[in-house]
Order: sequence, then structure tokens, then C-alpha cells
Amino acid sequence: MAARAGIVVTGTEVLTGRVADRNGPWLAEALRARGVDVGSVVVVGDRPEDLRAALGFLAGAGTDLVITTGGLGPTADDLTAALVGDFQGRPSALDPALEQRIAEAVARLSARRGWRMDPASTAAGVAKQAQVPAGATVLEPVGTAPGLVVPVADGRTGPPVLVLPGPPSELQGMWPAALAAEPVRRALAGATELRQSTLRLWGTPESELAAALRRVEDQLIGLEVTTCLRDGELEIVTRYGPDAEPAQQRLVQAVTADFGDTLFSDGPTVDELVAAALDERGWTVGIGESCTGGLLTARFTAPPGSSRRVLGGVAAYADDAKTQLLDVPAGMLAAAGAVSPEVAAALAEGARRRFGADVGVGVTGIAGPGGGTAEKPVGTVHLAAAGPDGAAARSLTLLGSREAVRQRTTTLALHLLRQLLLGGPAA
Amino acid sequence: MAARAGIVVTGTEVLTGRVADRNGPWLAEALRARGVDVGSVVVVGDRPEDLRAALGFLAGAGTDLVITTGGLGPTADDLTAALVGDFQGRPSALDPALEQRIAEAVARLSARRGWRMDPASTAAGVAKQAQVPAGATVLEPVGTAPGLVVPVADGRTGPPVLVLPGPPSELQGMWPAALAAEPVRRALAGATELRQSTLRLWGTPESELAAALRRVEDQLIGLEVTTCLRDGELEIVTRYGPDAEPAQQRLVQAVTADFGDTLFSDGPTVDELVAAALDERGWTVGIGESCTGGLLTARFTAPPGSSRRVLGGVAAYADDAKTQLLDVPAGMLAAAGAVSPEVAAALAEGARRRFGADVGVGVTGIAGPGGGTAEKPVGTVHLAAAGPDGAAARSLTLLGSREAVRQRTTTLALHLLRQLLLGGPAA
Repeated sequence: MAARAGIVVTGTEVLTGRVADRNGPWLAEALRARGVDVGSVVVVGDRPEDLRAALGFLAGAGTDLVITTGGLGPTADDLTAALVGDFQGRPSALDPALEQRIAEAVARLSARRGWRMDPASTAAGVAKQAQVPAGATVLEPVGTAPGLVVPVADGRTGPPVLVLPGPPSELQGMWPAALAAEPVRRALAGATELRQSTLRLWGTPESELAAALRRVEDQLIGLEVTTCLRDGELEIVTRYGPDAEPAQQRLVQAVTADFGDTLFSDGPTVDELVAAALDERGWTVGIGESCTGGLLTARFTAPPGSSRRVLGGVAAYADDAKTQLLDVPAGMLAAAGAVSPEVAAALAEGARRRFGADVGVGVTGIAGPGGGTAEKPVGTVHLAAAGPDGAAARSLTLLGSREAVRQRTTTLALHLLRQLLLGGPAA
Repeated sequence: MAARAGIVVTGTEVLTGRVADRNGPWLAEALRARGVDVGSVVVVGDRPEDLRAALGFLAGAGTDLVITTGGLGPTADDLTAALVGDFQGRPSALDPALEQRIAEAVARLSARRGWRMDPASTAAGVAKQAQVPAGATVLEPVGTAPGLVVPVADGRTGPPVLVLPGPPSELQGMWPAALAAEPVRRALAGATELRQSTLRLWGTPESELAAALRRVEDQLIGLEVTTCLRDGELEIVTRYGPDAEPAQQRLVQAVTADFGDTLFSDGPTVDELVAAALDERGWTVGIGESCTGGLLTARFTAPPGSSRRVLGGVAAYADDAKTQLLDVPAGMLAAAGAVSPEVAAALAEGARRRFGADVGVGVTGIAGPGGGTAEKPVGTVHLAAAGPDGAAARSLTLLGSREAVRQRTTTLALHLLRQLLLGGPAA
């Protein structure tokens, strides 16, 4: 039986979506890699009764470890540490040595940021952050907030609660120390290796895959299979213990046999495949984009080290920008319109030449919600890619919101480039 | 007493972060606007026991309505509808008329996407999606999956469960019909108006604000106050019933009195303020960015109608791109380096001139994780903005990951532009 953990993410700003949670997924993945199963992530606001209810829910169900994130700041709505102490039956008290270390960290940080701090309010915040439940293990602050491991009070039963800060960089920086803490090690001692494998298809409907999996389901015992369709990519993720490795091999064979023409990856994302294909040839890329307005270039430049292969991109929203920065002929814009296969090809060629890149990518379309016509409805997109050995193009009409059209167009552009560089399923 | 709802978001892909959940926050906000309080959002994978536990948790705690999202597709891991039926004591059966309507929707969609569908597997998927718990209300599909309102079985007590599809556009499209369904209307009948107000500060540390709020806390009875620091912006969100309007006014007065020099908004985001300021003057903007690699232009072009004010942007990663597309002098690059205040100003001026825009914005820096030196460490950024009436600039060193530096730099650029156009707190 694998070890099980439950996660509570706190913060009204997360509950209401003003801030997207990155800690729940990060922790779930970090735990999975160690063979620890996460059944659920509970997001609660900054209300004590909701946090208490979530702790009660997660501590109940055969869980070996409960993890909280957030609510460790200096303000009154940051109530996690004290509340977890109460929940575990361990009242909190000031740790003077910790108070001193936090005060020093705050002083360093405010000096760096150039903040003028009021000494009294700073001291009040520091004293709040230095409250430690009796018998808890302190995890040294990465920013200014310490983490805690709070075991249940003597004589009671229940999992320990690991209390981590909300800023992802602080949480991730504290993670090795959290894993090394004795109560956490003991809680996760039962964990066994859990493997994960991903297959990616491009252009297969989810129902086709479902039917194929149903035909072989009695050969897949021991696999937890999840399928997910996103931006036209169909992802098959399996999780399994070492014993189920033969079943995993049978799954891969079955998918390859039935969907070899749309299977494009046994792991890497399309972004990673394209980057590797460019790097292998020592090629560079330049982007000319209209409807995606910078989003495609931002996706190309997201990975560390991308300056090795990305020379740049022009987001040419205005027609003048298309002609003057990317040499799209004004006559072509007048005759075919800015949203046309001709202009997509001209944007790719223009980006290739102006950046002096080996490969150019061009995208034009109507992201909406306005700007559509009967002939060119919202969601119309034209894509083109041009390289030393040839070119590729695709035109289609997408459904969905402005955000969805912009996002999906970047995925289509990456698949077009994948097809040009590596072959495989047509974009 | 306000009505209370609980939300379950299903999907292993959400739990593990391969897909970011947008439904939980959207529903929490849509419910809040109607005076319905959401205490927690539970994210579970595609395992029946985890979904059942989450339903048990949320249905227990004085909740008036439980909402599920996702798990309504045609594949075997889409198990929400049947499981909710069982949970409510209402076994499912095929609804032949619904089956027919779904089959038609699937046929339309596959024709549009050009998918070759295997008839048998399609029919199996459709039949699965047309299973309806006895006594449930069907909400017509927006995509191919119907929603459901499943009341608890006769003779038992518990809240109804509203079952909604996972794709955000389908969920949002189905929302009006869900609110109009009789069991949902009855469940939320007790809801009273809940107001929300946001104040935004730029450059005030969270602990200063906490101290100020503590001094007036006895005047703020009836307000639920949340503060959140993000990318240097400090957001103060209050939620309150109509009775607490005077307390809200006292909060606004107190914040204005103590932090008038950093208060930049009583609602709109910095993106909205900048867009409105440009539109009011009829001005256009062009962007020249290096370390943000397209992300700043993508942020400017995200809102509908942004082509009215955004002419375009150049993401000039390579030095040659800076000189050839944005006229940054090669001598300046050699003398001051690509990451320098001079080059930021030249990028802003170059973007302004090359796009023929009223305002130019320039950004250069080191996003990391590589590329830093002792003199110019990772996180060094230089920003500049130039308009018809003057220019503004800022240089600083940011902490955090590549993603954090890129993201925060776009926020800094927007505040620089806000300061140039509207005055207020210095960027």
C-alpha cells in the first residue's frame, strides 16, 4: 500500500482565482515521484472554519501526511500556523531565537527592495511569524516565513501536518528540508516507487482511444490510465508500480498499433521536440505573428537557454507593421486580406529573412471576439513555416474564446514546425 | 445566513497540474456575485473513491449546493455522472432522446474538425454520455456532454449536486441554464447580496498595511478583508453585506489617509488603467522587448479590441535583431551591453518610431537561470517608456525564477507606463 498525502492550499486570492495555484500541482507531482499518492487538493480561503474543516477531511481518510501551503505571512489573515497547532492539540508560543533570524531576513529583504519599514509594525509581523506550536519542527525560512512540521499531540492519533509557505520559490526551496525532517520521513516510509509514462497523440478523437483501450482493458491490470484532450493534443498518462511494467508495455504496443499515425511522442512535449530538433541541426528560428500577438514568441522563449535557438519575433498587429518590419507586400494585404494563407507564408518568410534565421514561422487569424465576417469567421487561422528544406502550411477555423483561439494557435504552430522538422502526424 | 456551495473539480490532469483549473475560481466568483459563499474547492483525480470522499466532505458541512466539474466525457475515466447518481441514491439509466441529441452534436463537431470517427466507438461514447440518474434534471449540452442537477433520493437529506462539464466554455455556456433549474434555484434561495471591493497599492509592504488595518480593526466589523502581494502589487479585497457599507467606506478612508501615495486603483487592474489612458488620448503603443521575449506584447494584446491601441511588438532576443529591427546602435550594444538603461531607452524609442506609435516601451534584462555575472546578476532588468510628452525609466534587480522574472518585468513595464500617462506612485 502506497503512502498517501493530502494537500490544503490556503488563500482567498487562490480560491477566487486572482492568483492561480502552482503549489498543489507541484507538490502532487513531487510526491508522486517519490511514490506518495495524493488523493485530493483542497483550496480554502482565509477563514479559520474552512481551513479547520479541510484539515479534518484530509487527516481522516487513511492519510499519512497532510501538507498546507500559504497563510504564513505577517498579516492577520495569515492564520495557518496557529490554527494547525490548535488542530494538532499543540498550542503555539514565541520562539525568540527564530524571531531574531526572521528579523534579520526581513531587514535584508527590505534593504534590497528599498522599502521604508515602520519598526513597530515590522516587529509585530516578525513576532507573529515566530510563533511555533509546542513540539513542532521548524524549517528555516527561505524568504521570511519559517515552515513547520507539527505532529499530533501525544496520546492522540492522526498524521503530522507539514506547514509550508505560499510563494512557490519559498515552498520549493524548503522542500528538501521538509523531506529530511524526521516526522515527514517516518510518515512517508511506506512509499514505494510509482512510475509515470506519457504518450501523446495529435489528431485522434478521445472516443476512438477509449474504444481501443476498452478492447485491451483486461491486459492493463495495475495501470491507472488518464486521458486528456487539450488544444487538439490527446495525452495518455499512466501511473503504475514496478510490477505493472509488462502491462505498461502492452499499453504502448496497443496504442502504437492502433494510432501509430497520430502518436508523436512517448514523453516530451511538442515544445521540447521542436527545440531539440532545432538544436540538433544548430538551427535558429524567427517568428512573425499577428493574431497571437506575442504569445507564440513568448512560448518559444519560455524555456531556459532558448536564446540559443530563438533570434526573436515580431508581433505585427497593424498592417503597416507587417509590411515595414516583415516585408509583407502591401498589394498582397489589399488583395488577399491580412487573414489569408498568402500573408501567413509571407510572415514566415519575412521573419526568416529579417531575423536571419534558418526557420521562419508565420501566423495570422481572427482571435475575436470581434472582427469576424461571414467569409472569415472568428477563429479563422492560417499558419506557415519555412525552412532550408521546404515549407508547410495549414488553415483552419477554431472554436472558443479569444484566449482559447490564441492559445490553441500557438500549439498548432508548434505542430506545424514539428511536422516540417521531424515528420510524423500532419499538423 | 448566506447560502453556501462547495465545488469539486475532477481530473487527474488538473490534480497533477498538467492542466490549470479555471472552473473552480470562475464558479467561486460567479457564486459570490450572487451572494453564495464558497468555503472550499476540492480537486480530485479520476478515482471513484476520491470523488466519493470529496462529495461526502462537501455535502456534510451545512452546504446548500455541491457543484462538480469535469468527468463527463466519453471515456472510461469520465465517471462523474454515474458516481454522483450513486452518491445521491439515484441509479442511472439511458435517456434515448438525449442519446439522439448527443449523437447529432458529435456528428456536427466531427464534421467540423474533419475527424474520421469509428461508428461503433462513437456510439459507445454517446451512450455513456446519455446515462441519466433517475429524477435528475438534464441541462442541454453546449459541446457534447449534458449537465445534470441530481437531487438527493427521496427520504434522505442532503444538498442537490449540480454536475457540469470540464471545458470552461461549455461550463460557462451552461451556467445560465443551471441557475434557472428549479432544484438549484431552491438551494440558493437564501442567498443575499455580497459586495466586493478592491484597492490596489504599488510599493507598500504587506506588514505596513497589516499594522494600519490593526489600528482601525474595531471600525471594520462586517468586512472580510484579504490582502495579497503579487509582483509588487498589494491588493486589498473586501467582501461584505449591504449592512457593512459604512465600514467599507471607513476602510477606504483609512487606506487613503495612510497610503495615498501608493494607492493607484480602487478597482481596475494596471492593465485596464493603461489601456483606458491610451484610449482616452487616442494613442497607440509599440513594444521593444528582450528578456520578456514576447510576454509583454502578449499581455498588451490579451484584451479584446486591443488592436485599437497596440500596433505591435518586437521581441528582439539576438543583438542583430535589436539593431536591425529597432535601430539600437551597435556601438551602444558594444559599449553599454545589451542589458543596460541605454539599450532599454533605445528599444522604447526604436519601437515607437518603427511602429509609428505614440508611445514606445522598452525592456531588457537577464531572466536567467543562466547568463548572469557579478556585475549584472540574474534578475537585472532595465525598463523605459517614451511618449509625446516625456519619458520614464527604471532599473532594478528582481528575485525569483526565470518565469517569475519574466512575469514581474511585464508588471513593472505596465506601472512605468501608468506613471508616465497618469502619474501616481512611481514605478
